Amino acid sequence: MLNHLGKQIQKFQRFPFLYEGQFGLEKEAQRVTTAGELATTKHPASLGSSRSHPYLKTNFAETQTKVVTDRFSSIHKMYQQLQGLDAVLTQNLAPTERLWPLSMPPQLPADQTIKLTTVTAQKHAYRKQLIAKDGLKQQMISAIRLNFSLPTRLLLVLYEDHYQDKYDSYLEFHNAAYLKVAQNYQRYRYILTYLFGASPLAETNFYQSGQAKPAKLVRSLASSQKYGYANQTASQISFASLAQYVQGITTYVRQGKLANSREFSVPVQLQGRKLSKLTSEGVTYLELSNLELDPFTLDGISEVDLDFMQIFFIYMLILPSMPQQKLTSILQLAAEQHEQVALEDPTKASTLQAQLTEFIQEMQKFSVDFAAPHRLQIAVKRMAERVIDFKKTPAYLLSQQVSQQSLSQFAVKQANAAYTQQTQAVYQLRGYQDLSLSTQALLRAAFQAGLQVEVLDRQDNLVKLSYQEQTEIIKQGSLTSKDNQLGGELSANKTVLKKLLGAAGFAVPMSAEYRTQATALTDFPDYAKRGVVVKPRRGHSGAGVTVFKLPPKRAAYAVAVSTAFKFDRTIMVESFVAGSQYRFLVIGGKVKAVLEQIPANVVGDGRSTIQQLIEKKNLTRGEKQTKPMEKIPLDGATLANLTQQGLQLTTIPVRGNLVYLGDTANPVTGGDAVDMTTDVDVSYCHLAERVAAELKLTVAGVDLFIDNPYKAVTDEHPELGMVLSVTNQPSLIEHLFPYFGEAQPVAQQLLQFLFPKAFH
Amino acid sequence: MLNHLGKQIQKFQRFPFLYEGQFGLEKEAQRVTTAGELATTKHPASLGSSRSHPYLKTNFAETQTKVVTDRFSSIHKMYQQLQGLDAVLTQNLAPTERLWPLSMPPQLPADQTIKLTTVTAQKHAYRKQLIAKDGLKQQMISAIRLNFSLPTRLLLVLYEDHYQDKYDSYLEFHNAAYLKVAQNYQRYRYILTYLFGASPLAETNFYQSGQAKPAKLVRSLASSQKYGYANQTASQISFASLAQYVQGITTYVRQGKLANSREFSVPVQLQGRKLSKLTSEGVTYLELSNLELDPFTLDGISEVDLDFMQIFFIYMLILPSMPQQKLTSILQLAAEQHEQVALEDPTKASTLQAQLTEFIQEMQKFSVDFAAPHRLQIAVKRMAERVIDFKKTPAYLLSQQVSQQSLSQFAVKQANAAYTQQTQAVYQLRGYQDLSLSTQALLRAAFQAGLQVEVLDRQDNLVKLSYQEQTEIIKQGSLTSKDNQLGGELSANKTVLKKLLGAAGFAVPMSAEYRTQATALTDFPDYAKRGVVVKPRRGHSGAGVTVFKLPPKRAAYAVAVSTAFKFDRTIMVESFVAGSQYRFLVIGGKVKAVLEQIPANVVGDGRSTIQQLIEKKNLTRGEKQTKPMEKIPLDGATLANLTQQGLQLTTIPVRGNLVYLGDTANPVTGGDAVDMTTDVDVSYCHLAERVAAELKLTVAGVDLFIDNPYKAVTDEHPELGMVLSVTNQPSLIEHLFPYFGEAQPVAQQLLQFLFPKAFH
Repeated sequence: MLNHLGKQIQKFQRFPFLYEGQFGLEKEAQRVTTAGELATTKHPASLGSSRSHPYLKTNFAETQTKVVTDRFSSIHKMYQQLQGLDAVLTQNLAPTERLWPLSMPPQLPADQTIKLTTVTAQKHAYRKQLIAKDGLKQQMISAIRLNFSLPTRLLLVLYEDHYQDKYDSYLEFHNAAYLKVAQNYQRYRYILTYLFGASPLAETNFYQSGQAKPAKLVRSLASSQKYGYANQTASQISFASLAQYVQGITTYVRQGKLANSREFSVPVQLQGRKLSKLTSEGVTYLELSNLELDPFTLDGISEVDLDFMQIFFIYMLILPSMPQQKLTSILQLAAEQHEQVALEDPTKASTLQAQLTEFIQEMQKFSVDFAAPHRLQIAVKRMAERVIDFKKTPAYLLSQQVSQQSLSQFAVKQANAAYTQQTQAVYQLRGYQDLSLSTQALLRAAFQAGLQVEVLDRQDNLVKLSYQEQTEIIKQGSLTSKDNQLGGELSANKTVLKKLLGAAGFAVPMSAEYRTQATALTDFPDYAKRGVVVKPRRGHSGAGVTVFKLPPKRAAYAVAVSTAFKFDRTIMVESFVAGSQYRFLVIGGKVKAVLEQIPANVVGDGRSTIQQLIEKKNLTRGEKQTKPMEKIPLDGATLANLTQQGLQLTTIPVRGNLVYLGDTANPVTGGDAVDMTTDVDVSYCHLAERVAAELKLTVAGVDLFIDNPYKAVTDEHPELGMVLSVTNQPSLIEHLFPYFGEAQPVAQQLLQFLFPKAFH
Repeated sequence: MLNHLGKQIQKFQRFPFLYEGQFGLEKEAQRVTTAGELATTKHPASLGSSRSHPYLKTNFAETQTKVVTDRFSSIHKMYQQLQGLDAVLTQNLAPTERLWPLSMPPQLPADQTIKLTTVTAQKHAYRKQLIAKDGLKQQMISAIRLNFSLPTRLLLVLYEDHYQDKYDSYLEFHNAAYLKVAQNYQRYRYILTYLFGASPLAETNFYQSGQAKPAKLVRSLASSQKYGYANQTASQISFASLAQYVQGITTYVRQGKLANSREFSVPVQLQGRKLSKLTSEGVTYLELSNLELDPFTLDGISEVDLDFMQIFFIYMLILPSMPQQKLTSILQLAAEQHEQVALEDPTKASTLQAQLTEFIQEMQKFSVDFAAPHRLQIAVKRMAERVIDFKKTPAYLLSQQVSQQSLSQFAVKQANAAYTQQTQAVYQLRGYQDLSLSTQALLRAAFQAGLQVEVLDRQDNLVKLSYQEQTEIIKQGSLTSKDNQLGGELSANKTVLKKLLGAAGFAVPMSAEYRTQATALTDFPDYAKRGVVVKPRRGHSGAGVTVFKLPPKRAAYAVAVSTAFKFDRTIMVESFVAGSQYRFLVIGGKVKAVLEQIPANVVGDGRSTIQQLIEKKNLTRGEKQTKPMEKIPLDGATLANLTQQGLQLTTIPVRGNLVYLGDTANPVTGGDAVDMTTDVDVSYCHLAERVAAELKLTVAGVDLFIDNPYKAVTDEHPELGMVLSVTNQPSLIEHLFPYFGEAQPVAQQLLQFLFPKAFH
């Protein structure tokens, strides 16, 4: 009855709905040594319990890592999480370990030395059964499993538009649609095996003793019925109807031929909350297990492959149904075709080239006729190229890497390359680079700690973290619901902040406030005798701030005033306070990290010009907060600063000579952040904690001016620690990646504060 | 030694410091009936206990109200608070009562019928003593007392610049400066009496039986030694030195001639924390009691008079000191001059015209030479005009209002006029009109409740309220520290809000989100069949929102999309939901008020055009939230709306016919807010409370779409109450001044939530 479903979609112009849906992924990979041998160590302890971790688990063997994504409304979002999880997993490996990039396992030791994961007694019994039936080695193959749901909106409107009279209920229509996809998927899965097959051979010790092995390279050992992980019994289950499907599994489980209703390997499974309720509650997703690890990609699979899987999946819904009476024979033929493609020579064109070509051409037509999004059309094109030219298939490409009947050398090379790439630039988290660095750091720590992660809004850096029943939303890496909404308002208003802190007995720099340039200039005589700081009343990151360490000239003061007015209707003139600026990061009311913030500077090497020294220092720095440290700007302010010192960009400073290039001790203007957490006198930490408490903030960044960090601040001399400013959304990144000194694990500390139960 | 103080200031260019200082004010006024008789009622109960109220107290008699301001760093700020307090006091009077606008009391009943305020036993004894010595009637005169402090910065820098070697300590210099001001103030106080004297006569029953009374009108009965409230004993206290001053008072108190060291009436008093410590701790301010109530002003005194008092006060510091040996005789002469001016004929030029003229000319010169701020120079000029022309003095002006030996008729007229003015437009609070209306409403309620009020930042609407030890800061009238900082972030992000509320099981309108015009237009076919709302993702007050109640045409939809993109990088298209929009105001987790928000409309009267009806309705409305309701805009949107309905501005609607002029039910676009607090089914209140709780907000505005407010929302039909939006800073003003229906005391309710102890 669903043969004309495509026509209905065309008639009612439901194209956009076709490309919705829900997408999830599981991906296994073996942990190996840098020599490509199976690791003998335990799963990384830094990732906590692999059983309770929602994303980073182990399968079967202790060495078999498993990355499990959440379910997303787009492939792209799912892929982003996959990238982040892969990065975190790799970064938590022992430095001597790598992830094996192939689905087929590395050279295996004897069965008994393969360490299985610790599981419940029941699960243990099931495993023994699996090993007894299919052999342990098959279990060591690493699979990728996709969980795809049909777009609910699409099914609902189709039902309303056309199928209301043809089915007894929406549920029946819904289940029929899923069943159709599952049937067609099996019919055409040889297409996927041709496109994605990536296991031309097995390494030493894979085959059971006495087992015949293929004489030559093949396309997909992993998915072949004969050699792969496919379960013989499971492959006999009928897809003729949902009832028969359920019945089949139930029977085999009862007969002990299947261990349970979930864990068996077939290319496609109909999944719901519970097998016995599948008909009455409805199928919720299909589990597809056709893909193999692609060792040419960093994540074992490329986004374009996944895009293709999405459109292939929905294409199965649009294709005609198979006649019910011919179903068994067609699927039997399909299984044979699949085995034929799986075991054919990957260095030649496919034996089913004509069918492949026809299928992919039809699919291209579909992608255009049904207005598939650009990325899906591109994916079909890309796969069409693989059909046209077998040399573009992963199986062919891998066949070129075989050396001495083994892919080990190649696999180790890829594993090392991936490791290097994943452990570089760890201030970023792959898949989340568009978020602020502090948010990326928080997410990395959350993934590592096994918290559930949801990005609510990328633009706003709003993320939701959960652990068991507890949920916390965090903005910009450090803004949490633990703090009151006035803390930020008061921190942002510098005048009010000073008024309040001054009234509470804290030392704050003397300051005056102006609303017009005229009044600010009238008071100039008052400022002509001391160092002053001219700044907009509200402001971030030192924008519009001018520092006069020495008494300013009238003209320079006037420029500073007019600059500050560009940022706010009210400006402030403060006394310049000698000493250095320090950032105290308060988490849970306690100072967890301290940075000294040193204005932009270079140190002479005796032969480079100041410009060369700046350029060299800038090599590891970024702009607009894309790296933990900002580039020293080669702007007017820097030049003016040099001129004031009688220097030029072409000056060559004496070796070891420190040249300051800026006055504001702000990391955003190219300054250096130096960790002082264990060095600063503890009295300043207590001071910062009291300031945060005064604003009722448990998480805060408190900026103090300190003359001598080793000399305690006292009640008699509060001016030793002047409170400069406070923020309710402190950056985490500089503490994690200081220019000099020890990194502080502040992202993890923030999570510990938010989720004490997750860190027992 | 302080004779050349002015020269030091000129030499070091310390002019700006001269005009700093601290300023406070107390002002008494008698409560009378609309007939001008002393009230017999108690102090208004709505103002709480007059003893513990920080601002609105009573003096001596129960009828004698006393307004006490805080101490401020400028006259202007002090005057703003005075205006607010006067307004609140008047608004809390019984409708049949007024404030007597003169310092001299109204016609008095017999002594024994004057009700005294309830006070402690000790204070009661003192009062009896006062009455016995000076008579009760003198105590019924209403005074204005100014508390002025010299600018501390000025004294500190003067000491550092020049006086460090001339005094043993800063404190000695500081006290000497205050003493000099007090001495000179007494010397020249006849100037003030000329300028501000406003008591030409006394009403019936003022004089004690047998007491001689002036034969004709005078300038200042109130301040005359002979008839006024001056204390005979106190006037003999020596100002020769601070020690003698303290000694004098102490002796008189010991002898029982003065009841205590604080409460006695002399024109100027040196005040500190404690009389016995005055020398060792230093004088903190002078208390000046020269002014009289000015019945020609709304607040009993004008700001320009207070400005003059400020510059007069500082001028006393600059004038030469009196030679110590001639001090007594000079002050004796000054007292005589003062009495002469006080009792001279106000309808003629002063008998001391020559001195007055010389003094004011010198003062004008001072104001220019010492770079006084413009407002102070203006104040001196204004007073110079009074010197030149006695017809500009209050005493002369009052003499013209005397009728039948009484000012009663005039006083009642002025009292009524003031009452009318103070009780109009009560959505505003005088002195605070630049703040948001909700903040003004909150401050009015705070003043009434006897909370301590401090405005931290007018631009940001940040106010600090205190009661006993508790302090709360509030922004924009309703943003408090009770709520977490994420609530607002989540409320502001409509997409995330919907995601969260939807996930928590609340009914939210279906919506899609777009980042480009192209994608929004691609989905048009989907919106061509139903009503939709196109809006920017973030936004306030309906800006950029277009409502299509009926399915839009493509062109109109495109315009709406591009309009929304002007307000945000991301826009949303929502299903249009039928029903009305309601605002639920949650305070302390409970719904305290509900408004139905009706789109802009007019009701036909059968003869006016739509334009006339709009203009009529707009008469009581304002723009940019300066009034509780906004004008209906006569803009393109309104015209387009009429055109859609086949109407024009010139159309004359049938009598009683309701014509809608807008689609968005937002008070900001000219809609009507109708109170429904007691009408709406309570299930919606519970729904709104649950929504606020979901965001952990105790104070919130929750907007719901409700189809039928009398029909309960149920778990089975959550769509009966759709959650549209939430705000963490709800406006209070519409609930206090709805277009129709009962006003809800939400400002007071918010204060009750914040300060439960203040409302027991």
